[in-house]
Amino acid sequence: MRDANGSETVGYREGKIPEATVQRLSIYLRYVTQLHRDEVKVVSSYALSKGCGVKAAQVRKDFAYFGELGVRGVGYYVNDLYADLKKILGLEQVWEVALVGAGHLGSALTAYRGFEEYGFTISAIFDLHPEALPEALRERHEVHPIENMREIVSQQKIRIAILAVPAAAAQESVDTLVEAGVKAILNFAPARLEGPPGVKIRNVDLAVDLGVLSFFVTGKK
Amino acid sequence: MRDANGSETVGYREGKIPEATVQRLSIYLRYVTQLHRDEVKVVSSYALSKGCGVKAAQVRKDFAYFGELGVRGVGYYVNDLYADLKKILGLEQVWEVALVGAGHLGSALTAYRGFEEYGFTISAIFDLHPEALPEALRERHEVHPIENMREIVSQQKIRIAILAVPAAAAQESVDTLVEAGVKAILNFAPARLEGPPGVKIRNVDLAVDLGVLSFFVTGKK
Repeated sequence: MRDANGSETVGYREGKIPEATVQRLSIYLRYVTQLHRDEVKVVSSYALSKGCGVKAAQVRKDFAYFGELGVRGVGYYVNDLYADLKKILGLEQVWEVALVGAGHLGSALTAYRGFEEYGFTISAIFDLHPEALPEALRERHEVHPIENMREIVSQQKIRIAILAVPAAAAQESVDTLVEAGVKAILNFAPARLEGPPGVKIRNVDLAVDLGVLSFFVTGKK
Repeated sequence: MRDANGSETVGYREGKIPEATVQRLSIYLRYVTQLHRDEVKVVSSYALSKGCGVKAAQVRKDFAYFGELGVRGVGYYVNDLYADLKKILGLEQVWEVALVGAGHLGSALTAYRGFEEYGFTISAIFDLHPEALPEALRERHEVHPIENMREIVSQQKIRIAILAVPAAAAQESVDTLVEAGVKAILNFAPARLEGPPGVKIRNVDLAVDLGVLSFFVTGKK
């Protein structure tokens, strides 16, 4: 789950972009990245729409914020669309990311390959009790004690963090990260957190996704 | 990330419910579950709206699908709202869930407490090479070889599955699960999958969430 409030907007050039549109742009880029890797030259609106699970009219509407990204009657040149989407989303660079909490979920995230593919590298890991973590994890990654977090995140100029701590520790971690200069947080703690103005928090709650599935399955047994 | 196409609808009583609404209902229930546990009696629209990160007008609109859930001038009785949301989402029962893939992410999910809290229990785990998994995991959970998946899922009448396999193995797993009677799948594999009609797949792509954060952070350095 993520912010459900699709009406939040941010300035982009002359207009405002709803967060739901930004999320779809990120989905388009995931799909186009595959095409780019497979050296596909052109993708039709229809294929893009199907591949991303988004209606064709919605794709056109989303792209309209950024001027003409496609070519009428042809579709989209994959190289151009790939470059445009990366630029729009700020993914032309590699982002260094802090991971807070190296328990079951946190340590799984260190092994999640989707991040690296997309231009994110976990460059600092923090935990309340690094000495209590499994050997295997500590051989692969240096894990810093959480009391050093503010200093290290600030020194390394890290702007994005992933939070995988228990709910009770979540808000305190957010406060420290924000003090250290973090501007965006992906929160896996089962607590809805709020940051100060200018700090973006996306809440990921996997149980919410299962709740949606339950709705769809109910009555189908 | 999940299905971005908020326009998909399902029948509910006389109307149709957009999937985005179902997702928000699941968010409301997560929040109300906390209140219920803390023995809070009444929640105002404002508190519910703030706590869930959804605009008040949207909350009212979502609840309007189900008749009057609140009391004017009071807000919502927590016990009633908790019971109503659980019923609407089909969460009055415990759902048995199959987990396919017990690698880093899959094994982290076996330890994710949010599922149990919400009425989901992972009752069967499958992996291509159970014998190669860490001892610690195999001591906690029985892991079946994937060739037995169809039979076990079918026998146990499991209707919901979590997919945490590599992208290349994802579609084949979906096909087998569907043959075995699964109706809803939470997919963590970095591949957008489609099920046959009547089967719901939600794609969770954590990199998409990071892409959204990147958009918000870009230009703020």
